Amino acid sequence: MIVRDFNEAKFTARRVETANWESVRLLLKSDGMGFSFHITTIHRGARLKMHYRNHLEAVYCISGTGSIEDLQSNEIHAVRPGIIYALDKHDAHVLCAETELVLVCVFVPPLVGTEVHDQTGAYPLDSERI
Amino acid sequence: MIVRDFNEAKFTARRVETANWESVRLLLKSDGMGFSFHITTIHRGARLKMHYRNHLEAVYCISGTGSIEDLQSNEIHAVRPGIIYALDKHDAHVLCAETELVLVCVFVPPLVGTEVHDQTGAYPLDSERI
Repeated sequence: MIVRDFNEAKFTARRVETANWESVRLLLKSDGMGFSFHITTIHRGARLKMHYRNHLEAVYCISGTGSIEDLQSNEIHAVRPGIIYALDKHDAHVLCAETELVLVCVFVPPLVGTEVHDQTGAYPLDSERI
Repeated sequence: MIVRDFNEAKFTARRVETANWESVRLLLKSDGMGFSFHITTIHRGARLKMHYRNHLEAVYCISGTGSIEDLQSNEIHAVRPGIIYALDKHDAHVLCAETELVLVCVFVPPLVGTEVHDQTGAYPLDSERI
């Protein structure tokens, strides 16, 4: 059994940070669960265009308000506590944080932990990096 | 892209209920994500012995306090907001809710949605049911 604490992990290398967001990766590929599990905080006012070509991701909002735009359909959905969105078709999207957003993010395949968004808003597959 | 709202889903068949807990299954096998994603509420005072022989599960605590006992090692870990535990070895365990617990649960392989705990505290594999 693996037991970890977000409030400790955020002071370790599990926390990755950019200008617009930070993410604490509580479960990674090495944990052997078949998915990775992150608590991600999007800073207020951020507008993030992303396209995970190599991963599926589900995102559940714990706190905050914002929106997600599906760039295929141009539909905009509210993000607020209780909303989940799942990028089941590797959907290109724009996430906007009206307030700070705290999100649970689950990735398949799991992230290794060292990935950063590339210029297209994707995470590379770890197999492409090693 | 799939978008769902816990606060709507809890009034639908996505919500399953027992005497001790209820769970709203926001993503299931049919969603094709490779995992299922549930918001599970454990009622105050519940003591649940579980052993998922057929699944791996990660559980992240959003609110409440309690404990999880690993029945292999007999270690007891606190459960509080920010704690994640992952049953990476199909670990038999006892979850106790000191207060009401609200948990994010991720299962691999994903649940179909109709499973109930069997007498051993496991969910049967859907392939065994169909």
